[in-house]
Amino acid sequence: MTALDQLAGKIKHNDFTLGIIGIGRIGLPLALVFARAGIKVTGFDLDKEYISEIKSGKAPFQEEGLEALLSNPKFEAVAIEGSEARMASCDVFIICVGTPLTANHHVDYNQLFSALSLITRSSLLGKFVIIRSTVPPGTMLERVIPFVESRTGLKAGTDFGAASCPERVLEGHAIEEIVSLPEIIGGIDPVSTEIAASIFSKLNHNKKILRTTPGSAEMAKLFANMYRYVNFALANEFALMAEEFGQNGAEIISVVNDGYPRGGIPRPGLVGGPCLTKDGYFLVSNTCFPDLILLAARINEFMPQHVVNRLRMEMAARGRHLNNARVGLLGTSFKAGSDDERYSPSIKIAELLESEHVAVVRHDPHVKGTESLEKAVRDADVIILATNHKEFEGILPKIQQIRGKKGRCLIFDCWGLFDGQEARSHGFDYLKLGSKPLQA
Amino acid sequence: MTALDQLAGKIKHNDFTLGIIGIGRIGLPLALVFARAGIKVTGFDLDKEYISEIKSGKAPFQEEGLEALLSNPKFEAVAIEGSEARMASCDVFIICVGTPLTANHHVDYNQLFSALSLITRSSLLGKFVIIRSTVPPGTMLERVIPFVESRTGLKAGTDFGAASCPERVLEGHAIEEIVSLPEIIGGIDPVSTEIAASIFSKLNHNKKILRTTPGSAEMAKLFANMYRYVNFALANEFALMAEEFGQNGAEIISVVNDGYPRGGIPRPGLVGGPCLTKDGYFLVSNTCFPDLILLAARINEFMPQHVVNRLRMEMAARGRHLNNARVGLLGTSFKAGSDDERYSPSIKIAELLESEHVAVVRHDPHVKGTESLEKAVRDADVIILATNHKEFEGILPKIQQIRGKKGRCLIFDCWGLFDGQEARSHGFDYLKLGSKPLQA
Repeated sequence: MTALDQLAGKIKHNDFTLGIIGIGRIGLPLALVFARAGIKVTGFDLDKEYISEIKSGKAPFQEEGLEALLSNPKFEAVAIEGSEARMASCDVFIICVGTPLTANHHVDYNQLFSALSLITRSSLLGKFVIIRSTVPPGTMLERVIPFVESRTGLKAGTDFGAASCPERVLEGHAIEEIVSLPEIIGGIDPVSTEIAASIFSKLNHNKKILRTTPGSAEMAKLFANMYRYVNFALANEFALMAEEFGQNGAEIISVVNDGYPRGGIPRPGLVGGPCLTKDGYFLVSNTCFPDLILLAARINEFMPQHVVNRLRMEMAARGRHLNNARVGLLGTSFKAGSDDERYSPSIKIAELLESEHVAVVRHDPHVKGTESLEKAVRDADVIILATNHKEFEGILPKIQQIRGKKGRCLIFDCWGLFDGQEARSHGFDYLKLGSKPLQA
Repeated sequence: MTALDQLAGKIKHNDFTLGIIGIGRIGLPLALVFARAGIKVTGFDLDKEYISEIKSGKAPFQEEGLEALLSNPKFEAVAIEGSEARMASCDVFIICVGTPLTANHHVDYNQLFSALSLITRSSLLGKFVIIRSTVPPGTMLERVIPFVESRTGLKAGTDFGAASCPERVLEGHAIEEIVSLPEIIGGIDPVSTEIAASIFSKLNHNKKILRTTPGSAEMAKLFANMYRYVNFALANEFALMAEEFGQNGAEIISVVNDGYPRGGIPRPGLVGGPCLTKDGYFLVSNTCFPDLILLAARINEFMPQHVVNRLRMEMAARGRHLNNARVGLLGTSFKAGSDDERYSPSIKIAELLESEHVAVVRHDPHVKGTESLEKAVRDADVIILATNHKEFEGILPKIQQIRGKKGRCLIFDCWGLFDGQEARSHGFDYLKLGSKPLQA
């Protein structure tokens, strides 16, 4: 009986310990859903304060249903410092560390190799390593396996197993999607694929398992995100074209999609967040065919500047200068319903304005430390609706009430969340991304 | 009662004659479906031989269900020469002429303005003009209306009505989709929009009518096609990346899509046909934001060359020269089930090969005048599966039988229609677009 056969037996009988390395927005929900399924889970993280926050039972970030799972005794959060014995007691490791970009837009493998160094401090014989982090194609076979083999003197596939099982959940819906989404499993060989499949099937006995190679699993994750990213860019390109022709881009797109079997164009808007913004570079920096992805990045990353450019023009058309304006920014997180400001296009708008010494007051109902709605809109000359939070729907009367008899104010709606006529009836000037009446 | 009120009354009581200018692949199905709905329809075309063919009851091109509708006495095909009286008797004109590209990739408006010249030979008072052809944004309001007004001395909106109602059907499914698809109607004013809506509702009383402006209707058609075109290019970019990493692009894409709520990536392959190939330029030549569309064209138009490039390399790896090879090309139409060779990527492959003096034998079960399967494959050194016709599924044993004891042959499958293992078991070398085993 090989070491991996023994492991398979332990997994079958739920007699194993799962170690999740990196319990941030990806790792923590995964750890808690495994714990809920009856698996003993230890979550490891560098940040001791963050570990204390989790231990206190408070969700460290917004994620639907997360907090209720924190008290599960099957789960324990542990600081990495001094955790050698705890780590040695784990049978399966799922690596969920961040893979950010360097300043030159290459992958920064630092956290991944730190995690591999940590788990190889004790023997990996009969153990299993799953890479959940998003990584460039070739990471598992060309980087992870050679590194682990040379550190441990063990042979992958016989002494230890490994698989690429990329995360694909939507932030905010992680708890639900970890259970429901099909799992892409790229084992380094058929034995590893089946062991990884048996582990993820603990989350849902009917979970669809999609078996493939590590390289294909790595690419699948990147293709999935780039498919969305390029389509968002295309919607934005359409919106820019519509502006140029004096049409309403969002309306045209909804006309195209309405009842049309070949529809499905996303609505235009600001695009950001860590997954979509950085994942493309994992493909781009490794291939000679990066064109659509690079171009999508150029378009999506241009949108905040486009908002600033249009504001400047529209203010000038009204005899005002953007640089003397006070701006209230509504929404700072990168998407609706989220408290995550990483790679947020709203933040980019704020920074672009502030670099020109425009005063910006930021308000986000989901983000701690931002100002109140009152402060953001009371004295604003320009209000930018930058994140389409539900909380902002129907908020115009409230803003009008706060402002009282203050002078005219220009609303720039990046999402078409408000109705233009209604905005004007409340005394606002109103502009929408992807729409420009030629007569205006 | 205005002239247009009178027209509306005639339409209400089915007491009007419809003139379709241009009865090709778009106009003829539309004419016949209107005739089937009880409308008196005259179809006009320049080509007398083509008119005779239609009059003989033979479908001039493949279109599911078309031939059965040709005998309807409500429909008559008429040659344009000498048709002044017939044209003068029409109340509503639907212009379905071609809008090809010039050599410089600008729109060639010639047929459209010829059609407008023809219909303005007699009075347009109380009549209606629908532009069904695909045109650049701004065509109706900036070109058609001024042209017609200056020719006739009439005033659009009071003396005659007009609307942009772009065609969106899938070739091969036109008869069904003309009835079922929502109709985008961009009248030049609300009265024109309602008249056009009442005309198209004759086809289906429950037809969904999407009311918008002429400019938005024109753009909607182009956005719809470019959405597909860019996504095909993205699938091809993914396939090229997969080849580079020694993976199988089509397999990765199907893994991404399988049960994934944010999936839907098309499969990679050759992209062509008149709509997708030319429509992008109608946007590109009119805007300063053409990037994704231009790039998609570059990628999709590159795919035939990529096939030739890979064939050259793969032959060289086998110690052969592509220039000495005989090539059997399976499929010449631009898409499965079609007999339409316009802008066909298969034809482009043939032309690229022939320009290097490679002998190509073309076979397409749908296209008249192509060679038999026997001739195409019997002596071939290379067989290219270029169009994914249903007729080619499971055809490998037949090809093997035809070839008998002929030497080794390389199959290049642009669509993943064949199974690689099966092909090899029949004694073929097998290569697939978007897939390249690194060990090969």
